[in-house]
Amino acid sequence: VSAAEVNRGESVPTSFQAVPFSRTLWIDPDDPTRLRVIDQRQLPHALSELVLGTVEDVVEAIKEMAVRGAGCIGVTAAWGMYLAALQAHTLTLEEAWTFITDSANSLVGSRPTAVNLSWAVTRQLNALRDLQSTDEFVAAAKEVATEITQEDIVGCRKIGRHGLEIIREVHERKGSEVNILTHCNAGWLAFVEYGSALAPIYAAHEAGIPVRVYVGESRPRSQGLLTAWELQQAGVPHVYTADNASGNLLQEGKVDLVIVGADRVTSRGDVANKVGTYLRALAARANDVPFYVAMPISTFDPDTFDGLVEIPIEEREGEEVTHVVVSDGEGAIRKALYVPGRTEVSNPAFDVTPAELVSAFITERGIVSANELSLKAFAGHISPERSSE
Amino acid sequence: VSAAEVNRGESVPTSFQAVPFSRTLWIDPDDPTRLRVIDQRQLPHALSELVLGTVEDVVEAIKEMAVRGAGCIGVTAAWGMYLAALQAHTLTLEEAWTFITDSANSLVGSRPTAVNLSWAVTRQLNALRDLQSTDEFVAAAKEVATEITQEDIVGCRKIGRHGLEIIREVHERKGSEVNILTHCNAGWLAFVEYGSALAPIYAAHEAGIPVRVYVGESRPRSQGLLTAWELQQAGVPHVYTADNASGNLLQEGKVDLVIVGADRVTSRGDVANKVGTYLRALAARANDVPFYVAMPISTFDPDTFDGLVEIPIEEREGEEVTHVVVSDGEGAIRKALYVPGRTEVSNPAFDVTPAELVSAFITERGIVSANELSLKAFAGHISPERSSE
Repeated sequence: VSAAEVNRGESVPTSFQAVPFSRTLWIDPDDPTRLRVIDQRQLPHALSELVLGTVEDVVEAIKEMAVRGAGCIGVTAAWGMYLAALQAHTLTLEEAWTFITDSANSLVGSRPTAVNLSWAVTRQLNALRDLQSTDEFVAAAKEVATEITQEDIVGCRKIGRHGLEIIREVHERKGSEVNILTHCNAGWLAFVEYGSALAPIYAAHEAGIPVRVYVGESRPRSQGLLTAWELQQAGVPHVYTADNASGNLLQEGKVDLVIVGADRVTSRGDVANKVGTYLRALAARANDVPFYVAMPISTFDPDTFDGLVEIPIEEREGEEVTHVVVSDGEGAIRKALYVPGRTEVSNPAFDVTPAELVSAFITERGIVSANELSLKAFAGHISPERSSE
Repeated sequence: VSAAEVNRGESVPTSFQAVPFSRTLWIDPDDPTRLRVIDQRQLPHALSELVLGTVEDVVEAIKEMAVRGAGCIGVTAAWGMYLAALQAHTLTLEEAWTFITDSANSLVGSRPTAVNLSWAVTRQLNALRDLQSTDEFVAAAKEVATEITQEDIVGCRKIGRHGLEIIREVHERKGSEVNILTHCNAGWLAFVEYGSALAPIYAAHEAGIPVRVYVGESRPRSQGLLTAWELQQAGVPHVYTADNASGNLLQEGKVDLVIVGADRVTSRGDVANKVGTYLRALAARANDVPFYVAMPISTFDPDTFDGLVEIPIEEREGEEVTHVVVSDGEGAIRKALYVPGRTEVSNPAFDVTPAELVSAFITERGIVSANELSLKAFAGHISPERSSE
């Protein structure tokens, strides 16, 4: 499909059984030059796939949020670089490199806030930079994309195991169900498998610890619907609420801990995440409820310090606020006008939670305190991986 | 119309010109035994009226939020008592009093959180209690309802004048446009005319002070749409946002002050207001932005102290979250499914903002600090009015 087709949403209807279980993207088994992804714009109303054959398709799918979530965007972009290498295969080496670097710029420009995107693309560029043939470009890009995918999967599983211990501790202290508030979607739909914020919840559920998840709808895109859908598939008890309800839930003592994901974390621990995260962090602190941020190392950005000043906050189309995707209850879905009139709309997609509101980070390497010293040591740990950039 | 008809939403289409300007309710000029109200469930998609002929109609209109907003509910309930007196006119004195007290109970039970409702109904009961004929019931109920209506109108205008001074001060200090964040709808639609939180904004706009209002949508009922509609009618510049954006707006310094309304204020100054108010109060405090609560005296409840413990928080139907009212862009509106699946929903309609987060109250008697001493003095002031209860 072309980018234009992606725009028109001509995705392939499928059934949950047809998708590799709980996985957002995979190489087409019948055609290894195409990437298949779940079209997240259709969920939870319908489960459909998009077939992405070019890097332009990938850019469009990320821009339009057919593919979304920090990890998933990064991995998809890594595969976008592979598709770019395939497209450049018959060009001269110089032309191919120009095409690949142009593609890299398009990919990085498709969403500004999540750092995983530029991290994955830069890693591809560094792996390809000194190669001597377009054959090598294709082979290396495939290898790096495969590596990034595997790291994402393994990392999320580890985040789940580390976060499980936090939930277990609350359960042992409390002796009953653990109530967890989350925001947006940081489940497997936001990564390749398993997820970040939902990973500890899945791990606890699998370990037999009773959990209940409070899912805020996360307007304007209502990614809470994705989280509710994921939890429903996995049989995890959950309660859906308007975003405004999170303060009331916290002040009434209905929440034992908060776990959210992140799109970018600065060297001192400021967290850019889906708009509304900051409000939940403030309410958690005001009510002495621990506030955890789950993130893979690829989300850490040691080159930034003050999140509010240094992280660009994406301003998205007002139509995301004024229109909603609704269903007739029998499978037919459509975009409908929710906010009539010609009202000016402001639609920031993220906000920044200052480090002092974060109880700790749950990473694939363990639990890290949200202060500069701990994070510096942590940044040191990851320098070998970053040194190649 | 019967209560059942109200339920079916059979309201009378009208035009803005046909409604007394910026007024939510009025006695039918052609039939003084009927109350006409704006059907707020249809706004901003369509402007229509409901004709309420019985106290049962009024109860249903309040429950279904055809009529909403602390002040508007109170005044409508006062007229509901008048309709009850009319219905009881041909009964014996004893039967009539039983009908009137039963009606009072139904009205008070129709919404639990706003105190204006029970305040207005109690004032009617006290006025009627010792009368000796059903003629007197009707005459007195009409007189009290008229008084409450007039007090509401005059009170809101005074709130506007007092709040104007706060906005003027910011404007003089800043020398440019004053940016004000509000929540839900506390404009004229929430009262009879003018409003509480929007009253100072209207007053500033009329005084030529440049203002811009940030309007959060206030899910799940999206009363922000009512606020945007009001401001549009009045020509006041405004920006519509998802609720989640309020933290980002405050942390980016885009807001000079917050003004919200209230459904009930306790003796120490805790504020029950539309769910999500507390989150904005926390974010305002964290960013050193003043947070004002505008309220008429009828919203003050000296019989409560700890808002979180003592104010009942109404839990409303999950359908308010799972369904939205959308338009086809050409006038036809319908309820559509927004949250598919059988997800459990929690839908608290209010939250409680602790007094320490409130910079001050803007009342018809002036600006009152949000501490118990000031409020005690204030409560003393209002005791003559309350002593009749």
